[in-house]
Amino acid sequence: MTTRVPPTVVWSDENGGAVRMIDQTLLPGEMVMLDCTELEEVALAIERLSVRGAPAIGCAAALGMALVAQRSEATNLATLLADLRDARERLAATRPTAVNLFWALGEIDDAIEAAITLQPDGDVWLAGPSLTAEPADLKAAVLRRANEIVADDLQRCISMGQHALKLIPEGASILTHCNAGALATAGYGTALGVIRAAHEAGRGVHVWVDETRPLLQGARLTAWELVTEGIPCTLICDSMAGYVMRQGKVDCVVVGSDRIIANGDVANKIGTYTVAAMAAHHDIPFYVAAPVSTIDYELHSGDDIPIEERDRSEVAYLAHRAPEPVCPEDVAIYSPAFDVTPAELVTAIVTEKGVARPPYGRSLAAMRDE
Amino acid sequence: MTTRVPPTVVWSDENGGAVRMIDQTLLPGEMVMLDCTELEEVALAIERLSVRGAPAIGCAAALGMALVAQRSEATNLATLLADLRDARERLAATRPTAVNLFWALGEIDDAIEAAITLQPDGDVWLAGPSLTAEPADLKAAVLRRANEIVADDLQRCISMGQHALKLIPEGASILTHCNAGALATAGYGTALGVIRAAHEAGRGVHVWVDETRPLLQGARLTAWELVTEGIPCTLICDSMAGYVMRQGKVDCVVVGSDRIIANGDVANKIGTYTVAAMAAHHDIPFYVAAPVSTIDYELHSGDDIPIEERDRSEVAYLAHRAPEPVCPEDVAIYSPAFDVTPAELVTAIVTEKGVARPPYGRSLAAMRDE
Repeated sequence: MTTRVPPTVVWSDENGGAVRMIDQTLLPGEMVMLDCTELEEVALAIERLSVRGAPAIGCAAALGMALVAQRSEATNLATLLADLRDARERLAATRPTAVNLFWALGEIDDAIEAAITLQPDGDVWLAGPSLTAEPADLKAAVLRRANEIVADDLQRCISMGQHALKLIPEGASILTHCNAGALATAGYGTALGVIRAAHEAGRGVHVWVDETRPLLQGARLTAWELVTEGIPCTLICDSMAGYVMRQGKVDCVVVGSDRIIANGDVANKIGTYTVAAMAAHHDIPFYVAAPVSTIDYELHSGDDIPIEERDRSEVAYLAHRAPEPVCPEDVAIYSPAFDVTPAELVTAIVTEKGVARPPYGRSLAAMRDE
Repeated sequence: MTTRVPPTVVWSDENGGAVRMIDQTLLPGEMVMLDCTELEEVALAIERLSVRGAPAIGCAAALGMALVAQRSEATNLATLLADLRDARERLAATRPTAVNLFWALGEIDDAIEAAITLQPDGDVWLAGPSLTAEPADLKAAVLRRANEIVADDLQRCISMGQHALKLIPEGASILTHCNAGALATAGYGTALGVIRAAHEAGRGVHVWVDETRPLLQGARLTAWELVTEGIPCTLICDSMAGYVMRQGKVDCVVVGSDRIIANGDVANKIGTYTVAAMAAHHDIPFYVAAPVSTIDYELHSGDDIPIEERDRSEVAYLAHRAPEPVCPEDVAIYSPAFDVTPAELVTAIVTEKGVARPPYGRSLAAMRDE
């Protein structure tokens, strides 16, 4: 399980403690590690997309809390808790829609709660004279939990890769869309984790990388990961995927997901639905890789998922790479960030618990209850 | 049949005669007319894509020959013919793969041949003492034929639009891919001619414009034409078209073609096949508009069409708009310029002679023989 891509976001003991992350805004031109030694640096890194991808953002937020704990000069528990409360507020304001961010902050809350003696009202943020823990104990508890969150995320990706091995034939050409890679997680990746595992198992795979307009996560991030790992790959424009399939050059598709409905409907980066429908048209298996935490057991249909619409500038200015708009300034632009692939187009869903097959209502429920 | 887009390429009597064209390299930022008063300017305009689109290139070449004839200082027929021979050679070297270029030059050859008295060996380029025509007659003949070529091209587009009216329902939302517009022809356009005709007939149409990676002809040219004409339109990335169809927002698709096989297989800009397959998946009619001259009665299958592969820089540098590559410098890139849509996905083919329906083997042959 070696990888040439450094950990996406990780704790560093150097220089009195830092949150170390790949600055993804500089990829693929430069691979620069960013050591954040102050909370504001972590918050800005999330806001400026130096770290992106829901699981990776959650890891960065947890490590940000650990950073504040480690560097706090508080000599008593009340001051330390006040520092952590301020940090939590700042981090929660960075990316208000990223679910994993709030999940990770909640996990740190629980760790704090467990580390200190609670007051009768159970409010961990109101430290009073009845608290018995030492500041050092709390600091250690927060760092421990943050590191666990990062390690668990990585382990889930590795498990997905192992479960998916049976799906990937020898010498397979695998098409992927967007970046569900090491860079979107603590490391290894979900969809790219499946591809990494097949590569490490000596399957001799080749990857077709959709560039993924409008923000080009495929061209910028997935292609970089694969080139860095030495996994053979070819970059194409999104509109070329169907033609490549028609030529018989794609054996299966693997993508990640932002939300999976209990019935198997899959929300993912815009364009995924078209890839899935074209795969079905050519009898090519279409696989989704995502942790169980991605499954939404509340909604009953993908049609209920609200689809974020993005700013026109991402289309007009080519992901902000073009100095001038490439279209008339006053033309209407529609830019949905995600689409929904109906369950009937999904051949299997890979999670850290195994491979779910249709009917998904039953197989995904079993994963929850396991 | 009014249009707010100026003629793409046309003869101008100003300043002693000029080939006047829209400089498409400056669109959509600036609408600048280019008056070419020397042959080399016409040749460079074709090479630098100031004028592009197979029919438009043919018109530019014919007008380039007229320009040389009009401006020649030759006082005898032999010198004038020598000037025309040099011009033909230069123009033929501009875009060696554009079929219409050679067709147009051949039409001018025929006009020259008809205008002069042939020598016994029938070689029009070897003017000898037996030639009886005056230079002025030949100059007039070349200009007349060039203007006819331009006018005929425009008229064919207008006819296509009229024939297609029965296909476009009231209030239709029409999706198109690439630019098969006024800018690709003498004016009016093939696929966009169909859309213009429906708009002029008061059908209240709306157009979904695929941006058309890698070279963005949809974002740059089609969106500009539609905004200029005041035809309601919305620009999307190519990967969004399938999702828009799934939402029930597309009533039909209309595209142009670079080559249509006698069996109905259609070669067109890369991405067209995916649009056609997604349209079929959603029971949306898929129409192709192109003149009969686009039909290749020699080949028997679209699989026999050689598909040009384009340079990696168009993908890596976002159609040369990005200062830095958006992908790793050393990643493999595959960039086919065209794809082939099999006849079974094509609902109808519109030409200047009418609407062909399956089976195309019969309906397209009838158009040839008409």
